[in-house]
Amino acid sequence: MPPSPAPFSDSACRIAADVASGRRTAAAVAEAALAQVQAREPMVQAFEYLDPALVRAQAAAVDAGAKGPLAGVTVGVKDVIATFDMPTGHNTARYRGVRTGVDAACVDTLRQAGAVILGKTVTTEFAATQRGGKTRNPNDPARTPGGSSSGSAAAVAAGMCAIGLGTQTGGSTIRPASFNGIWGWKPSWNVMSREGLKVYSLTCDTLGLYANDAADFTLLADVFGLDPAPVPDSLQGLRVGIAYGPCWHLTEPPMRTALARAAALLSEAGAAVSEPALPEGFDALPEAHGKILSREGRAAFLNEYRATPDSLHDEFRAMVENRTGLTPADMRAAYALADRCRAGLDALFDSYDVLITPSACGEAPLGLDSTGDASMNSIWTLMQVPVVSAPGLRGPNGMPLGISFVARRYADRTALAAAALAGPLLAAAGE
Amino acid sequence: MPPSPAPFSDSACRIAADVASGRRTAAAVAEAALAQVQAREPMVQAFEYLDPALVRAQAAAVDAGAKGPLAGVTVGVKDVIATFDMPTGHNTARYRGVRTGVDAACVDTLRQAGAVILGKTVTTEFAATQRGGKTRNPNDPARTPGGSSSGSAAAVAAGMCAIGLGTQTGGSTIRPASFNGIWGWKPSWNVMSREGLKVYSLTCDTLGLYANDAADFTLLADVFGLDPAPVPDSLQGLRVGIAYGPCWHLTEPPMRTALARAAALLSEAGAAVSEPALPEGFDALPEAHGKILSREGRAAFLNEYRATPDSLHDEFRAMVENRTGLTPADMRAAYALADRCRAGLDALFDSYDVLITPSACGEAPLGLDSTGDASMNSIWTLMQVPVVSAPGLRGPNGMPLGISFVARRYADRTALAAAALAGPLLAAAGE
Repeated sequence: MPPSPAPFSDSACRIAADVASGRRTAAAVAEAALAQVQAREPMVQAFEYLDPALVRAQAAAVDAGAKGPLAGVTVGVKDVIATFDMPTGHNTARYRGVRTGVDAACVDTLRQAGAVILGKTVTTEFAATQRGGKTRNPNDPARTPGGSSSGSAAAVAAGMCAIGLGTQTGGSTIRPASFNGIWGWKPSWNVMSREGLKVYSLTCDTLGLYANDAADFTLLADVFGLDPAPVPDSLQGLRVGIAYGPCWHLTEPPMRTALARAAALLSEAGAAVSEPALPEGFDALPEAHGKILSREGRAAFLNEYRATPDSLHDEFRAMVENRTGLTPADMRAAYALADRCRAGLDALFDSYDVLITPSACGEAPLGLDSTGDASMNSIWTLMQVPVVSAPGLRGPNGMPLGISFVARRYADRTALAAAALAGPLLAAAGE
Repeated sequence: MPPSPAPFSDSACRIAADVASGRRTAAAVAEAALAQVQAREPMVQAFEYLDPALVRAQAAAVDAGAKGPLAGVTVGVKDVIATFDMPTGHNTARYRGVRTGVDAACVDTLRQAGAVILGKTVTTEFAATQRGGKTRNPNDPARTPGGSSSGSAAAVAAGMCAIGLGTQTGGSTIRPASFNGIWGWKPSWNVMSREGLKVYSLTCDTLGLYANDAADFTLLADVFGLDPAPVPDSLQGLRVGIAYGPCWHLTEPPMRTALARAAALLSEAGAAVSEPALPEGFDALPEAHGKILSREGRAAFLNEYRATPDSLHDEFRAMVENRTGLTPADMRAAYALADRCRAGLDALFDSYDVLITPSACGEAPLGLDSTGDASMNSIWTLMQVPVVSAPGLRGPNGMPLGISFVARRYADRTALAAAALAGPLLAAAGE
């Protein structure tokens, strides 16, 4: 049959329902995705590895077997996440073409549910630098898609796959979601296994997910067996706090306007919107986040540093060499601050269902050299709370601006539901 | 040359010095280790995988190249730790014979330093059950070597390798060290990369190490680039606290006697020994540890549960199914308690250099069905502090009893030095 490009709105929910009901085969979904890749990839450059034969074989297996909850759903996998049948290259010389023999736990879970892994997507080196890769923003090829989950975000934004897997240690999932105008979800820390993801900072590393439809995340939450949490069915009465956070001074005017617009829309829809004081100590969290990444990265990258001292980016060498002179006392203080702030934030959520905060400092910057600033995301990563970035609003250059919905630790479903309710309002306002 | 069995006291320090100076070749060290394996393995059953040709090839490569700080040092690797050239089986049906294609970061670091990986050692299933394996205690084949790092501990105790790699999530490194009469070290959390170790509980999982000589740990601390810390050069004036802990009621009389004997020996040597009150909240730590393992294991083993629902041990099914009904609120409380206790313990170390506490409840139990009780270890694992188990003392059945030296987080070198100073006193007392 002649392949037709997948519509931008092809979602995991729709694919799974179609394949389960027989309205479409997984093979047809895969062909549509491959056609979309053929059409968009020359510009977007989202993939490090994509073998159409492997994609077709997976789809055929899905069509031949029982239909799981993600039957036929196409997934792009960030190239720091292990796959048994494709190389995992980490965008670094040492691992080019290396195969791990086993799937990361998250990939394993998705495959068991019927997903089809389309390919491996571009990452920055070890998902741990802001140095840009080859991937371009589908909304404007002159701009970065963000990073480090550059390829997965761009692939979803370009309609090449329904779901993208990323990771987040600072802002590597949520910032690209904002820049590309798609849904992004950084789950609560460690509620989805991070086994088979490159380690950078155990305290902060989290699997991240992308979709074009908020409902897809609820489907994924079910597949991963996430905890129940209060799920609002309306914005009426929802207790929303506006969180400016310690890096507000780094936001650009368009994002400030967007956050205010989001707050106004929620308020008009009946939400109780206010501006809580963030817990004591929050102002020092960005610095603590930097120290924790640096010290944990020192242990994580020691072996890479020894193996390839010359080819590794200098940021890694600086961490392993402890060039900032971090002491054990510094680290104990940084962890203790994070612990206290987590307790304070947990208490704040007694009075709020969700907080809203910018998903990035502004629109995606011009150029591909840098993937942009993660300042708006890092503190929430360190707090280990769920964050859902909702697309819809746009800036003066027509580029997307995401709004983050943050909920209490383990209340991922609350953040997902609140963001999903807000989504149509943001989309209408951004048109 | 005719192989001669490695002496029990063949240590990493001695091997590395001999190979560096040319007194022995790595090939000769490897042959001696293989001969010891031939002599002891039929009884001990420490290995899951051992290919002499692979061992000889590694040794030849060491002899042909520059001599790193661990040149020729033989290492047994627990079979939940990835090795590119040997299968990593996790003692579970699904991974029998599976190869990962890449080394765990710790194995990578050891190889870069010149170590020779002897083979993969027996673990309990996914290093996460107390169900015993085939390995026997070299001190008494009717007794368990402990677990889950059963094989690495027994291999080191039987003189088959100089260094053993294990893991610890509850008491999987320190308890076997006690049962086998060898040195055991659970480093501070995340100061050595855990990449490539099977994930169970990210909060607690830690690489563990075994040796027959305390000095080997200092050598390893250097190889892994651990932080400096105060290092006592004498027991005179060392501030030692006796920590009975919340599970003291589970200790058996021989271990109580051993701890008192250790305290008396340290005191006689000039240490300032006293009995501090442990921080508020410690009594609830064992329960919090259990909850954290159960919840984190639920995420960690979801994919295994889905893949092999029938062959997996029921303990895993119970975790994934959340049979104890843990709620998000339970988890937030458990983490908050651990955070508070870490801060309290850190403050306690303003007044103490080390704490001493039992490494196990008593001598290694009879039988191989259970690897014994981890109650004496779990709270320290959750506190993420360094623990060094010193051998020497013995119980009424002539079996070893280890004493744990616990230091402030990141002060691994303090714990190592204090335990090393105490070692000769304990050994003399146990003779």
